[in-house]
Amino acid sequence: MGRTTYKRKIYLQDKPRQEALSEILTHYAPVRKVEWVDSTSALGRITAEPIFAKVSMPHYHASAMDGIAVIAEKTFHAHEKNPIQLKRNENFIYVDTGHAVPGPYNAVIMIENIEEIDEDTLEIIEPASPWQHIRPIGEDIVQEEMLFPPGHTIRPVDIGALLASKTLQVPVWKKPVVTIIPTGNELVQPHEQLAPGRLIEFNGSVFANYVLDWGGEPNLTGIVVDEPEKIREALLKATEESDIVVINAGSSAGSKDYTVHIIEELGDVFTHGVATRPGKPVILGKINGTIVIGVPGYPVSAYLALEWFVRPLICEYSHTPVPKRPTLQVKLGRRIVSTMGAEDFIRMNIGFVEGTYVANPLTRAAGVTMSLVRADGLLVIPPEISGLEQGDVVEVELMRPLEEISQAIVFNGSHDLTIDLLSVQLKKRNLYRKIISSHVGSMAGLMAIKKGEAHVAGVHLLDPETGEYNTTYVKRFLAGQDIVLYPFLKRKQGWFLPKGNPLNIESVQDIAEKKCDFVNRQKGAGTRVLFDKLLRESNVNTSEIVGYQREMFSHLSVAAEVKSNNNAVGLGIFPAAKAMELEFVPIADEDYDLVMTKAFFESEQGKNLIEVIQSASFKADVEKIGGYAVVENPTPLVITSKPEVE
Amino acid sequence: MGRTTYKRKIYLQDKPRQEALSEILTHYAPVRKVEWVDSTSALGRITAEPIFAKVSMPHYHASAMDGIAVIAEKTFHAHEKNPIQLKRNENFIYVDTGHAVPGPYNAVIMIENIEEIDEDTLEIIEPASPWQHIRPIGEDIVQEEMLFPPGHTIRPVDIGALLASKTLQVPVWKKPVVTIIPTGNELVQPHEQLAPGRLIEFNGSVFANYVLDWGGEPNLTGIVVDEPEKIREALLKATEESDIVVINAGSSAGSKDYTVHIIEELGDVFTHGVATRPGKPVILGKINGTIVIGVPGYPVSAYLALEWFVRPLICEYSHTPVPKRPTLQVKLGRRIVSTMGAEDFIRMNIGFVEGTYVANPLTRAAGVTMSLVRADGLLVIPPEISGLEQGDVVEVELMRPLEEISQAIVFNGSHDLTIDLLSVQLKKRNLYRKIISSHVGSMAGLMAIKKGEAHVAGVHLLDPETGEYNTTYVKRFLAGQDIVLYPFLKRKQGWFLPKGNPLNIESVQDIAEKKCDFVNRQKGAGTRVLFDKLLRESNVNTSEIVGYQREMFSHLSVAAEVKSNNNAVGLGIFPAAKAMELEFVPIADEDYDLVMTKAFFESEQGKNLIEVIQSASFKADVEKIGGYAVVENPTPLVITSKPEVE
Repeated sequence: MGRTTYKRKIYLQDKPRQEALSEILTHYAPVRKVEWVDSTSALGRITAEPIFAKVSMPHYHASAMDGIAVIAEKTFHAHEKNPIQLKRNENFIYVDTGHAVPGPYNAVIMIENIEEIDEDTLEIIEPASPWQHIRPIGEDIVQEEMLFPPGHTIRPVDIGALLASKTLQVPVWKKPVVTIIPTGNELVQPHEQLAPGRLIEFNGSVFANYVLDWGGEPNLTGIVVDEPEKIREALLKATEESDIVVINAGSSAGSKDYTVHIIEELGDVFTHGVATRPGKPVILGKINGTIVIGVPGYPVSAYLALEWFVRPLICEYSHTPVPKRPTLQVKLGRRIVSTMGAEDFIRMNIGFVEGTYVANPLTRAAGVTMSLVRADGLLVIPPEISGLEQGDVVEVELMRPLEEISQAIVFNGSHDLTIDLLSVQLKKRNLYRKIISSHVGSMAGLMAIKKGEAHVAGVHLLDPETGEYNTTYVKRFLAGQDIVLYPFLKRKQGWFLPKGNPLNIESVQDIAEKKCDFVNRQKGAGTRVLFDKLLRESNVNTSEIVGYQREMFSHLSVAAEVKSNNNAVGLGIFPAAKAMELEFVPIADEDYDLVMTKAFFESEQGKNLIEVIQSASFKADVEKIGGYAVVENPTPLVITSKPEVE
Repeated sequence: MGRTTYKRKIYLQDKPRQEALSEILTHYAPVRKVEWVDSTSALGRITAEPIFAKVSMPHYHASAMDGIAVIAEKTFHAHEKNPIQLKRNENFIYVDTGHAVPGPYNAVIMIENIEEIDEDTLEIIEPASPWQHIRPIGEDIVQEEMLFPPGHTIRPVDIGALLASKTLQVPVWKKPVVTIIPTGNELVQPHEQLAPGRLIEFNGSVFANYVLDWGGEPNLTGIVVDEPEKIREALLKATEESDIVVINAGSSAGSKDYTVHIIEELGDVFTHGVATRPGKPVILGKINGTIVIGVPGYPVSAYLALEWFVRPLICEYSHTPVPKRPTLQVKLGRRIVSTMGAEDFIRMNIGFVEGTYVANPLTRAAGVTMSLVRADGLLVIPPEISGLEQGDVVEVELMRPLEEISQAIVFNGSHDLTIDLLSVQLKKRNLYRKIISSHVGSMAGLMAIKKGEAHVAGVHLLDPETGEYNTTYVKRFLAGQDIVLYPFLKRKQGWFLPKGNPLNIESVQDIAEKKCDFVNRQKGAGTRVLFDKLLRESNVNTSEIVGYQREMFSHLSVAAEVKSNNNAVGLGIFPAAKAMELEFVPIADEDYDLVMTKAFFESEQGKNLIEVIQSASFKADVEKIGGYAVVENPTPLVITSKPEVE
């Protein structure tokens, strides 16, 4: 154990997030600085003062047409039966669009409406009304009018208004400097060698890019080791040089979580712990007049905390409101339990199935960056709610454009490596089409089709009695629905083994006898159904299998696990073993098929999907992986079961 | 007239916009180039290939807690009544969060749940379940899994996933080079001297910033004069160097609109004229395999055309969908007439008044940049619709965040220079509060209150019979509503005259006799009511006033007009004359007051407004302008008129 000089502090506060934010805002006294930038490169910058037009636009009476400038009053009697002749430089002059119309001329007649008599004489047969086809001075912008208030974010069109009124430079807020300090003995830079117990420092770069995106100027320091003296030094330097300081990790109450003590020592701590899950171990404090924010180490906690506290401070610096995400009403596909007394932030997948937006939670683990990467939406459950029921309609913040969500094909079910390739090929043909896939296993895939939560399920479910794949399951579990079972892939299942198969494993008996660490799949996964069948056939009891209880959710996860342990064995498909450079001992050929409603199969989306599956380019992609055969021109099986009770 | 070698072509096509776009997309054959960028600086870039994880995250079994790693199976019998002792390095090791958990250890017990017996001996009273508090290999990212499909725009969190899986560089699409050629003899660069007939070239800079914003790489050339040879040369050079070429102006069918002819000569023209208002004179063509787009000269036409055609091409280059604006249902405050057979693009002001989003069109002049700057939304009226009625509910594309729109105070009525200052001061106190003002004149302001389209109206309406301001009008026109008339400003009205008052104007008689060019205000404007009263009192007929029919919409516009013409005279408030450095001859003191519903006056927004008006900082701002007095602690007049018929 570390020999620390700080007392272990186990309990964090559970301060409501909004209260913590309001409080830190009252302590925030930014020294706002103004800089003048060229209007042409002011895109996205925020005005620090009101901007007034320096000249009018146009700054003279300008012809809005090609034609002639006339004195309107002298044309009033013109008529088809009473043509009027005009003399050049006497009562008309030629003007093109944009030309000045000098006094006493006060109207323009379009070139189409004049008849040339000779070089200096024209004839008109219609009167001109005063000021017709003239853009008067200041039509667009009047000198001295306010173009923009302070706090206005400059858009491309605004640059037009600035230049048109001869405002060549514009006062904008300097971007607040946000120093980011990554700490941790276990951290290495991304390019450095990885060893067990070493983690790549990536939070800092993510923070820097968030700060950039939110209009701040990030300053990412090197990694600081977990020593109070080093952290103290880094914090002091940063608070002197920055408008806001973010220190990553060490914000909790563990034995090496020095940060809170150091901030207390050098300045003030206002908050240690907010009532949120994840994101609880946040520190909000102040040193030398500079706000210091201690952010937890787990990526999801970290990024949420940054958005809750750093973004509002950046916005406050330039006196602009914090932008909000668009929201969407969705139906919950599953029950969600929530912590009473704390806000829960749940990353959601959203699919548009049968006219309804259906949302399901992704993993809630705070360490899973990919749960934020994959999220379509964010569900915020308030502290006073202990949970939400399946079927509840709730509001989520959108993390992806709605068009993408509404046109995506929702794929649930068994994991297969070709699904990503299918998605890539779909998108190549139609920008909005892609597949959002959840690896939930074959049985859960069927259930998602039953409940109208997915468009397509990938299944490989062996009926131990008939030896047939999928058909019996679909008939049993989707009775009463019109379903299409589309034959998709033939794949090879086999043992995943360390390179060279050191324990010489070939059967379930070997696995039991040699006490291998078996890496199992989750309940309802087709691969687990297959393994259970093999156990029964060999009369091996599940209790004889070490690791039988441990569940992984994809072939790649099983392969990764086997790769890390020389005593391990798993069951899965050939391509996953190949990708991880494992030994593969084939034991079965299986049918991996697609299940969908007949309505989806016949829809445009469904047709797109089948077209891509049968395309030469997709088949070529699949062939490149190896161990697969796409079923050629299959006959889809249409199952129209009547419900048992009429 | 220009002696051009090209025939004048008067008629443009009216091709549906979507048809023109689909067609140009079929002709677009971009040579897409890939570049590898550091993942840390890939923000906003678009993946050109699918990205697969290079290592798992975590890449080892990592402790998720500070505590001890144990072999779960050896703890199963631990109980309060049956404590189990563990020996260091025999059946436990110490681990901190993030440390590797080596085999055969397969569970972590939190530091809080152990009792230290001596340095090498611990006691536990609860069993550990296998894999508890361990982040297994690949919990976040599994090696070889697809992180991103091609066409994914990289966000800050995505950079985390890239670095965590040791993907240090990432293949992204190069940004397509869009060359922008401004043409026109009348154009000068923004820093150059302005003369009548000269216009500042600003469209090019706006285009460049749109291209930047949309993910392209802009290349803005110098100004090219209107000579076929120069334009030809510029186009040839640009098409060789760029992915897309935009040429500004000369795209119509005027005598100097060479562009279409030159593109025809060097390549192909697919479209000349689209069925839109504004934006009709667009050219879509191709030279040397590069798409060339001729964009009209008027700013609003130009920017819309750019969005319709250039943005989709940029998106097509990187194979991403064109983002859409959020939309909102609004009620129309006015009737809108639309051109049959063409799409109309109408810039709208939107206000949230009495629970309804009410939208009114801004000017439809294609030359008014500020109509886009000021627009809250864009109403697109399809070609088959000839108009929309007041009260119709329609969908608009939002050009500003909804929170800004929903919290803004909608101000209609007479123009006054202090309204902008009021807005600035409001925003300083509350980020979302600001004033959206329309200078429609006092009477139109009253009508807006009557119809529930504005929160506040600024009025200065003189009752010629009583000599009193505003009260009679409010009582007459807002009968049946509970209204507050809030005394706001005392202002000076007077003649606006060229410096030195060369014609020695002091009265309406002088204006009539000396045949001055009078610059009038629109019907319903308080200043016009005052002028009409002066005419009546002096027995001068409107026909004796040169320019009586010509209407300007603000004091500043009148002042700008007077400044440009030595024979001109206008009527207006002192600060506008002062801003434009004009001579000012005072003729009346007037009351400029605020009219609002009682409900608004008592709302939080209303209270905010009054607070600001009575604040020292606002009064100081007003004093700086001069010619005003803010009414000190006025007594608001509450008018509760009963409707005449019960």
